Amino acid sequence: MKIKEFQKYLKKKRISSAIFFNKGLDVIEPNFYYFARSNFPFCLVIPSAKKPALFVSKMDAEAARKAVKGMRLVKVGKHFFPHLKKYAKGTKIGIDKHSLTLAMFSRLKKELKKKRFVDVSAACLELRAIKTKEEINIIKKGCRISDEILKSCFRNFRSFRTEQDVTSFLETETIKRGCELAFKPVVASGKHSSMPHHIPQDKKLGRGFCVIDFGIKYKSYCTDTTRTICIGKLSKTEIKLYNLLLNAQQNTIKSIKPGMRCSETWETCTKNLGEYKKAMIHGLGHGVGVEIHELPNLKQASKDALKEGMVFTIEPGIYFEGRFGIRIEDTILMAKKPVLLTKIPKHLLIMRER
Amino acid sequence: MKIKEFQKYLKKKRISSAIFFNKGLDVIEPNFYYFARSNFPFCLVIPSAKKPALFVSKMDAEAARKAVKGMRLVKVGKHFFPHLKKYAKGTKIGIDKHSLTLAMFSRLKKELKKKRFVDVSAACLELRAIKTKEEINIIKKGCRISDEILKSCFRNFRSFRTEQDVTSFLETETIKRGCELAFKPVVASGKHSSMPHHIPQDKKLGRGFCVIDFGIKYKSYCTDTTRTICIGKLSKTEIKLYNLLLNAQQNTIKSIKPGMRCSETWETCTKNLGEYKKAMIHGLGHGVGVEIHELPNLKQASKDALKEGMVFTIEPGIYFEGRFGIRIEDTILMAKKPVLLTKIPKHLLIMRER
Repeated sequence: MKIKEFQKYLKKKRISSAIFFNKGLDVIEPNFYYFARSNFPFCLVIPSAKKPALFVSKMDAEAARKAVKGMRLVKVGKHFFPHLKKYAKGTKIGIDKHSLTLAMFSRLKKELKKKRFVDVSAACLELRAIKTKEEINIIKKGCRISDEILKSCFRNFRSFRTEQDVTSFLETETIKRGCELAFKPVVASGKHSSMPHHIPQDKKLGRGFCVIDFGIKYKSYCTDTTRTICIGKLSKTEIKLYNLLLNAQQNTIKSIKPGMRCSETWETCTKNLGEYKKAMIHGLGHGVGVEIHELPNLKQASKDALKEGMVFTIEPGIYFEGRFGIRIEDTILMAKKPVLLTKIPKHLLIMRER
Repeated sequence: MKIKEFQKYLKKKRISSAIFFNKGLDVIEPNFYYFARSNFPFCLVIPSAKKPALFVSKMDAEAARKAVKGMRLVKVGKHFFPHLKKYAKGTKIGIDKHSLTLAMFSRLKKELKKKRFVDVSAACLELRAIKTKEEINIIKKGCRISDEILKSCFRNFRSFRTEQDVTSFLETETIKRGCELAFKPVVASGKHSSMPHHIPQDKKLGRGFCVIDFGIKYKSYCTDTTRTICIGKLSKTEIKLYNLLLNAQQNTIKSIKPGMRCSETWETCTKNLGEYKKAMIHGLGHGVGVEIHELPNLKQASKDALKEGMVFTIEPGIYFEGRFGIRIEDTILMAKKPVLLTKIPKHLLIMRER
């Protein structure tokens, strides 16, 4: 995506080319993937003009020739750096300091002598934060698929005995639809719900709130939804808190518009939470794209602002250690107005205890 | 694992403590995980004496308190570095240069002034290469589960129409057993079999060889197996090549013993392949553990030697671009003799064409 825009940036900054690395097929380095549209290991060089070059090993050459479009393919044997020197000309070279390891950087400095290295990671993150039409369509479709899976999960909920049963269901339904998980689903029932990143266990689902945080990758783009349902009966206070949080989430979504500061979205939400503001022990949300957490960063100390074309979550949560927690999260597109991409209902779902 | 051994190393090298980072719950930094036995973001400090300290965010504190044993837990708010300074005393600090990003290293240098940073990654890899009894038992169990899944895949093979059907089956069976994939399975049928890392497609399974490369993670430890089966009829040459490769793999396994150089295992195997040596476009194998590729490295240029307690793959493959490929891979424990951990049969399985 946006290779031309990135090349424009390189030209403006007089950077002759930028180098990205991808360690292995099962590791997705987000900036590498964003530009290369593939995750063949191991190197991508984007010059400020002309076609990017993708360096692949002998064993991946045939597959890369079939899959990769619009790039030069360089098949590399034992000796990678002589090839790299040919493609990374000029003296000012862009690197991604948030993904480049110290070991690789030392090697680069040694091999590409007399070069100056400058960080281009911030520019990549900014490009990625504003989604193209194509990306928006992919994420919309991903959110529809994720909605379907969650709906079917709630329909089948009575057949689940443990938290792991729920996770297994979500995961297998994701695979059946040719997608991948964006992250390991959180299924936190009963007292576990107070832990935002609880790892689902092979024990009977607990009574009370059950937080389900689930996201898929469709065509390599992430979605992110959380619903909190209830197993058995809740106390009046618990119901009041659920509605308070739901209200805060919905009011925050309604309030957002292009140009708004992310710190302001946080303020809006916590104001809505009143005395329970302190129970919100995490940020309000984050951009989603090829990575599950990218720009914008919706937290109190954020310097980001909302812009048209951004896709991000709004996910307030309140947690009471040792007791329970509630989180409600949607994936939102910032158009002229906010567009809800995850559309699964948010009224409190009550499941009978098994 | 082996924290005491690592601390001994630190003492010997007069390193006061080593610092490891883990970016997020869904990213497993192998050295971080190996010592911490958990993947809570985001920092682990191992001093040369006393208990290691795990730094977690407010939102993970409750979960970490329940899950983490034998470490100090440090709950970190907005300000991480003042805490780190308290724990990372002394002047010589160990870092993992193969996982530490340039951005994090710059920050460390700025915050921990007057410290000397030395790389400890090689020492970690060496410790990890020799498995403890506990690790060996976990990997053995993992291999048994992976064998079961592959057997069941072959039993059900007639119900699969596409490569993706096979992958889906392998993936869902893995999840059902409470395990994870170690990597995305390769299912490469027909002409695709010549691409070692082929990405399974939603098209009818091709005729001829079908390479299935599959590994799971059981209790965070990887397994790795490849079988090449046949769909429909093969030519006499193809059958001859299969048996040549199988023979090479089995002879190589028989030949290995503690103390043998890894480069020698490569020589043994390629000698067995005779004129087809050049068709082997990748290494002979790799260690497996918390990472799918770790030490030892069984390739021609390797300086490693086999030692008791190592667990690694032996996976020769021969590939003919545009035509077909064959790979046979097992996970092996180097005890006094080689012990085959993946026990699924290797005679050529012939499936009827659909």
